[in-house]
Amino acid sequence: MTRIAILGATGYTALELIKILLRHPEAEIVAVTSRQEGQPHVAMIHPTLSGRLDLRLEDLSPAEVAARAECVFSCLPHGASATVVPALLEGGARVVDFSADYRLTDLDSYAEWYGQKHADPVRVGKVPYGLPELFRAAIPDAPLVANPGCYPTCAILALAPLLKAKLVDPQSIIVDSKSGVSGAGRTLKLITHYPECNESIAAYNVGRHRHTPEIEQILSVAAGDGVEVIFTPHLVPMDRGILTTTYSQPATKLTEEKLMQTLREFYAEEPFVRVVDHLPATKDSMNTNFCDVTARIVRGRVVTISCLDNLIKGASGAAVQNFNIMYGYPETTAL
Amino acid sequence: MTRIAILGATGYTALELIKILLRHPEAEIVAVTSRQEGQPHVAMIHPTLSGRLDLRLEDLSPAEVAARAECVFSCLPHGASATVVPALLEGGARVVDFSADYRLTDLDSYAEWYGQKHADPVRVGKVPYGLPELFRAAIPDAPLVANPGCYPTCAILALAPLLKAKLVDPQSIIVDSKSGVSGAGRTLKLITHYPECNESIAAYNVGRHRHTPEIEQILSVAAGDGVEVIFTPHLVPMDRGILTTTYSQPATKLTEEKLMQTLREFYAEEPFVRVVDHLPATKDSMNTNFCDVTARIVRGRVVTISCLDNLIKGASGAAVQNFNIMYGYPETTAL
Amino acid sequence: MTRIAILGATGYTALELIKILLRHPEAEIVAVTSRQEGQPHVAMIHPTLSGRLDLRLEDLSPAEVAARAECVFSCLPHGASATVVPALLEGGARVVDFSADYRLTDLDSYAEWYGQKHADPVRVGKVPYGLPELFRAAIPDAPLVANPGCYPTCAILALAPLLKAKLVDPQSIIVDSKSGVSGAGRTLKLITHYPECNESIAAYNVGRHRHTPEIEQILSVAAGDGVEVIFTPHLVPMDRGILTTTYSQPATKLTEEKLMQTLREFYAEEPFVRVVDHLPATKDSMNTNFCDVTARIVRGRVVTISCLDNLIKGASGAAVQNFNIMYGYPETTAL
Amino acid sequence: MTRIAILGATGYTALELIKILLRHPEAEIVAVTSRQEGQPHVAMIHPTLSGRLDLRLEDLSPAEVAARAECVFSCLPHGASATVVPALLEGGARVVDFSADYRLTDLDSYAEWYGQKHADPVRVGKVPYGLPELFRAAIPDAPLVANPGCYPTCAILALAPLLKAKLVDPQSIIVDSKSGVSGAGRTLKLITHYPECNESIAAYNVGRHRHTPEIEQILSVAAGDGVEVIFTPHLVPMDRGILTTTYSQPATKLTEEKLMQTLREFYAEEPFVRVVDHLPATKDSMNTNFCDVTARIVRGRVVTISCLDNLIKGASGAAVQNFNIMYGYPETTAL
Repeated sequence: MTRIAILGATGYTALELIKILLRHPEAEIVAVTSRQEGQPHVAMIHPTLSGRLDLRLEDLSPAEVAARAECVFSCLPHGASATVVPALLEGGARVVDFSADYRLTDLDSYAEWYGQKHADPVRVGKVPYGLPELFRAAIPDAPLVANPGCYPTCAILALAPLLKAKLVDPQSIIVDSKSGVSGAGRTLKLITHYPECNESIAAYNVGRHRHTPEIEQILSVAAGDGVEVIFTPHLVPMDRGILTTTYSQPATKLTEEKLMQTLREFYAEEPFVRVVDHLPATKDSMNTNFCDVTARIVRGRVVTISCLDNLIKGASGAAVQNFNIMYGYPETTAL
Repeated sequence: MTRIAILGATGYTALELIKILLRHPEAEIVAVTSRQEGQPHVAMIHPTLSGRLDLRLEDLSPAEVAARAECVFSCLPHGASATVVPALLEGGARVVDFSADYRLTDLDSYAEWYGQKHADPVRVGKVPYGLPELFRAAIPDAPLVANPGCYPTCAILALAPLLKAKLVDPQSIIVDSKSGVSGAGRTLKLITHYPECNESIAAYNVGRHRHTPEIEQILSVAAGDGVEVIFTPHLVPMDRGILTTTYSQPATKLTEEKLMQTLREFYAEEPFVRVVDHLPATKDSMNTNFCDVTARIVRGRVVTISCLDNLIKGASGAAVQNFNIMYGYPETTAL
Repeated sequence: MTRIAILGATGYTALELIKILLRHPEAEIVAVTSRQEGQPHVAMIHPTLSGRLDLRLEDLSPAEVAARAECVFSCLPHGASATVVPALLEGGARVVDFSADYRLTDLDSYAEWYGQKHADPVRVGKVPYGLPELFRAAIPDAPLVANPGCYPTCAILALAPLLKAKLVDPQSIIVDSKSGVSGAGRTLKLITHYPECNESIAAYNVGRHRHTPEIEQILSVAAGDGVEVIFTPHLVPMDRGILTTTYSQPATKLTEEKLMQTLREFYAEEPFVRVVDHLPATKDSMNTNFCDVTARIVRGRVVTISCLDNLIKGASGAAVQNFNIMYGYPETTAL
Repeated sequence: MTRIAILGATGYTALELIKILLRHPEAEIVAVTSRQEGQPHVAMIHPTLSGRLDLRLEDLSPAEVAARAECVFSCLPHGASATVVPALLEGGARVVDFSADYRLTDLDSYAEWYGQKHADPVRVGKVPYGLPELFRAAIPDAPLVANPGCYPTCAILALAPLLKAKLVDPQSIIVDSKSGVSGAGRTLKLITHYPECNESIAAYNVGRHRHTPEIEQILSVAAGDGVEVIFTPHLVPMDRGILTTTYSQPATKLTEEKLMQTLREFYAEEPFVRVVDHLPATKDSMNTNFCDVTARIVRGRVVTISCLDNLIKGASGAAVQNFNIMYGYPETTAL
């Protein structure tokens, strides 16, 4: 049994995390934090938790959190996370960080894309990227794991095996992603006001989305070479799910069979990646920790399609998968 | 041709009004107002108006508005409207008021339900309720018309003919309404944040919704007797549309045929009320100024079902219908 | 460990049932049936089950099913279920029946509402209605349990405690229900074609819905007196969830506090009914086996609001709850 | 005034066409056809037309149609249209054809993509492609106009100006399109059954969609050179709207300003193409005949984004635009 604290518990990833942990036989949630005044009961914020989790949201210091919990899931936004992680680690806790703070390994890139200096530069570059399908070996002993972004997970799981096998040209990659609205978080914005985004699809942050360097960094590791991507995210009128369509130039003579075989072999032992023959819909992986992947060749170009639930495999499910690996529980527990 | 100003032009009813007026051959929009800083172009606020209306949002005084426009549509919220209407009228403009400020005829009731003293008490009770199907005669010469609420229009059009004909007991009425999310306006709230209200239905303001006294007041006029209603609004995950189901006790021996015949005769000459045999869906009247009405007898109780588009017949379409009557244009122009 | 077969496995309730049973430590799915030709793999029909359940849909006789499974969940439609249940029971299996065939205790009522003679009349009236909150004692030893309808569960859980306590007049009850589209099943119909029902709400089967006699029968048991309801179902543009608003006359002097206290006491020990102070949204119980209930007094009338997930507490979750009781597993297992 | 017949009037494009023509001062709908038995009233099929169009669906021969109407809009499916168009033209009617039958100019390509021999080969290649923005001059005198496909319109309007100006490499084009569900028509299919496609996005017909050769053919005309595209359509959970994101290699040194200026100049006189600076959402052009277009340069690649309403500018609005040009009415009438 592991004692768990969740920081920034008012958002959607925290809610999803709580729901997963409530069915985890080895997890005990001992603290949920927020800066909300008055210590509201967690069920006041998330009515679906009524009768399921009897805790109040507390405004605790990192030291207090570390004193109470063995493992801390930080659902704080980027910037904020890096200011508390050092104290949590010093207090003896292990941390799964949902923010982007420890994902990028380059401080300049972080400063450029996130518009701020990093608050904990000494750890940058030394934290495993918590995508077990690529970096499982680094996770069991890590005090701190950087939980991947939702778009990056979906794009990387489709492309990494092909880049690793040198099947596609690393300079030719286009990533066209479509995401449900929960990915934009719980903070009120006009763009996610129901009558604005319902019954409508739009691209956003074209060429400027912060997941771009994250995708490139991890794909470069997989390729053993610099990878550059054109990344276009779109907002789709649905609660959850990401579908990513990628386009790239073959680096060699390729058949669809070869593509699919490469994916199948790469993921043969993976419990949460399903290489499927059909064209997957996001609903197939909704409320699950699966990522569905397929590939096609269209007029000589490689097209991959991958889907996942942005709140599960794209966030909280992945976090629990990392937690399971960190603490030696079976990797699929509660997932 | 009539020169028109629209106050509070950033909201959904104003947008819908602009779209209707753009196809009105006798309407020229000369001013759109808002307290937004910097006088943004209307297409910055409502991108769908790009290339269709070349005006900036101005922060004008009522006197300035009245100097420029003959007819003013006030889409200001309740409370605010009553503070500018007197000056508009004094400036010589005629006004269609979307707010609730001039709908209730009783000052105490206004104070009780709207939680404030009325800013223009002398006019209260002297302003026609702009539901042409019931009060057409009062509209042509009115300097000021109180445009009805969306829920009231839907409930009243179903029930008024039955109450007028003494077919149902005025003390027995239950009004169960279901509305799309645009009815809640454009102000950001958690309840209308997409991931909160999408894929979910909930009742709200049970027993406390401000449209209750409005429904009762107008139905009492129709009944010639005090009417009391239990009113329960629900928020439905769709952009537009209200469906209202009412339940009441027959006041006399009744057949379904008699019910339908009463409705048919009452609306025989009405261009915008369709008495239909089938069970209407809100989509049937979406983007139109129609209200669809039908009635059934179930186990001896009267059940009516009525539908309309909350932004058209429930707001901006009704306002243009009133405008047409006020200015002697054919009532269906642009609708 | 119990061996389980699922009949009629192509529909939504079967899919949901499979997903629940896959996380049930004491359930092993050994057969899934359908009359589909060619024995397609279950993942061909339900892609979300890819890699999770490796079975083909078989066209098995009841005897074959009973030979293979200890417990059979019949997701067959009404009429069909009653033709196979006798042979399943004779073959030694126990059965949870999702259809309406064994819910009504009166053969004439069945014939009237379902338009056919009952195929297994001898069992009618002897089968427990599988709503544990009211009839738990009858379930552990039952060879056959009639799993309740989705609308009835939602209405009954709100009203039964009030009728049992003689707080409301049994002749005054109005049940206005709003359901997501999955309740209409997987068979293609124009009414559930996406562009028809999306962004629209409509009533259907007003006064003629087959769940009417089921609600009345069970509420009459609770009231110890004949109950008559006006039942109006509506189709809401969302996948899942039912919200039911009921209206009734108090049978005695009542306060809101008394209402809530009655509900709270009735469900004090129930794991799956949450009596809540706030107005519940269907999303609060989505993907859970909870039913959320609250009550208000509005202008002297009793208003209840209850919500559940029509595929879980309204169907497959309830079925597993019954299964757990029948086989002596903790009632909340896998739920 | 022009007398109009609509063939295949039960579908969504026909419904939208009727709604537009009802507000067209110079159009009189004199016949609507269908093979439905019993000549149902048009309002039985499309309840939204109740009280707006008093016609029955008739099963008329082409000769009967041509005897009654001057202009025929054929909303028949591909294959069927080509079997009636010759007789309509011989009967003296002019025709706007919604099907793909007269869009492709190459009979082999038609046979390959549509899986059948063409029923009217002599006309193939002589029919103007009814995209006024590119081929306006050919439309006024044409007896028959091939109304463009929805996806092609959206892709072509974004890319044609860039190809014509030799700004992008014609062999490098990727077209990633996202469409609302009405684009899949009114025929019942599992993929458009509400609980299947709601809250889900998926790609379909990857590399095999029939709009591919149509896009290539028209873009080749614009480029004056062979154009090849990778086209990937996706189904998005919304009623209407297409958003198309394209990716291509610059053919020359390019700035974003140059791209936008090229688009702006090309469409300077066009009433229905809006070149916008912001990233457009499909809702901006919903229920209008506008196509919104913008362009960006991302990491040296050209990205265009274009939006339209698939039922209006992508079908029925375009058809009325063509009709207006054919009959000499102002091009924007009723649009």
